[in-house]
Amino acid sequence: MIGEKLASLGLNLPQKLSAVGSYVPVVMLGNTAFVSGQIALDFHLEPAQLRFKGKVGNNISIEDAKSAAALCVINALAQLNSALGSLEPIKRIVKITGYINCEPSFAEHSTVMNGASELVLKIFGDIGRHARVAIGANSLPLDSPVELDMIAEVAS
Amino acid sequence: MIGEKLASLGLNLPQKLSAVGSYVPVVMLGNTAFVSGQIALDFHLEPAQLRFKGKVGNNISIEDAKSAAALCVINALAQLNSALGSLEPIKRIVKITGYINCEPSFAEHSTVMNGASELVLKIFGDIGRHARVAIGANSLPLDSPVELDMIAEVAS
Amino acid sequence: MIGEKLASLGLNLPQKLSAVGSYVPVVMLGNTAFVSGQIALDFHLEPAQLRFKGKVGNNISIEDAKSAAALCVINALAQLNSALGSLEPIKRIVKITGYINCEPSFAEHSTVMNGASELVLKIFGDIGRHARVAIGANSLPLDSPVELDMIAEVAS
Repeated sequence: MIGEKLASLGLNLPQKLSAVGSYVPVVMLGNTAFVSGQIALDFHLEPAQLRFKGKVGNNISIEDAKSAAALCVINALAQLNSALGSLEPIKRIVKITGYINCEPSFAEHSTVMNGASELVLKIFGDIGRHARVAIGANSLPLDSPVELDMIAEVAS
Repeated sequence: MIGEKLASLGLNLPQKLSAVGSYVPVVMLGNTAFVSGQIALDFHLEPAQLRFKGKVGNNISIEDAKSAAALCVINALAQLNSALGSLEPIKRIVKITGYINCEPSFAEHSTVMNGASELVLKIFGDIGRHARVAIGANSLPLDSPVELDMIAEVAS
Repeated sequence: MIGEKLASLGLNLPQKLSAVGSYVPVVMLGNTAFVSGQIALDFHLEPAQLRFKGKVGNNISIEDAKSAAALCVINALAQLNSALGSLEPIKRIVKITGYINCEPSFAEHSTVMNGASELVLKIFGDIGRHARVAIGANSLPLDSPVELDMIAEVAS
């Protein structure tokens, strides 16, 4: 059970997610869930605030960026949890696309995104083995150091 | 009818779209339509020209960038219209990924992309409620201020 | 036969691909293959090394960037070949998203990505006609000049 796994890892998905306005956090197409871009917002705070802010290679360390990437995963899973009622219907984490807000000289995008991928593997085990893309961005919404979106397969 | 909705909004999809050469504007995979990246070209001009050109936070205002994002939506719908014969087969706008050509200090990517999302909602209503990603890019093709791609579900 | 086509083009897919650690190179969702981001690594070298390194508009010419984009295609196909056992099950190259590591003034992203698209068309003919997105990135993993991911339809 993914719920028990989360608990055993001491992870607590936020229930109260910010309204996003003119788009929606998750869209289902058949058994495929498309999760909107998630940034390093801490939804356990009220109001939600960025836990990390800025560019990797400038004021954000690689370790902080890895933590930011893991927080983006938590937020993506919280969105799936809210859309599906639980995480149990998830059959596979299919793909994660990660964007790193960084200086032009940065080259360790993979290291940062491992902060996301390793958490997904810890939570989901084999069904967490995902395809991945890691890209540099000169800027991201609200100056989040990381943004990622997710595609998941859901039991039909 | 989406066609009537477009007319009531005073929107007129261009029929004559530029050839793209070594790729195609829309590919169907089952009932999923993948629309290639669209930039702020005005296809009502002959030859088609960028209606907006440059970087947000430099020579492009947020309002202009929102208009550019809306124009990219028009172009994505024109491509779907051309590929499908009309927009009526569209069952859902599933996902929009938007790239903003901007300065490194820019942080209002969501505001810019609302120019795209709000137009989609106006045209499609409930079936226009899409997942979204908004990212900063240090540059875009032909120096367009915005580029976006789209995934749509089509009636089988 | 795609295998014969590759041979006739003098292309030799690498068999030994680097382990990617916390993610996987290809994930299948139904008959859709999602290929992880590929950079300009030459896997015929041991250990694999970037054949091109740096930014377009700085130390990388457009011609080199086109070659780097073609090499990324080779790597994506090598991953599919490894995951599927051969390239014969591929029914369609659906979409390529290409990221160009470049200076902020760069605007010829399409020209660079034609290096990828033209090779796909040469290898696959009609079933190689893909949707495409081309974006500028201020940086890419290991300072590769190009990164791309791929979606392919596979015979069920």
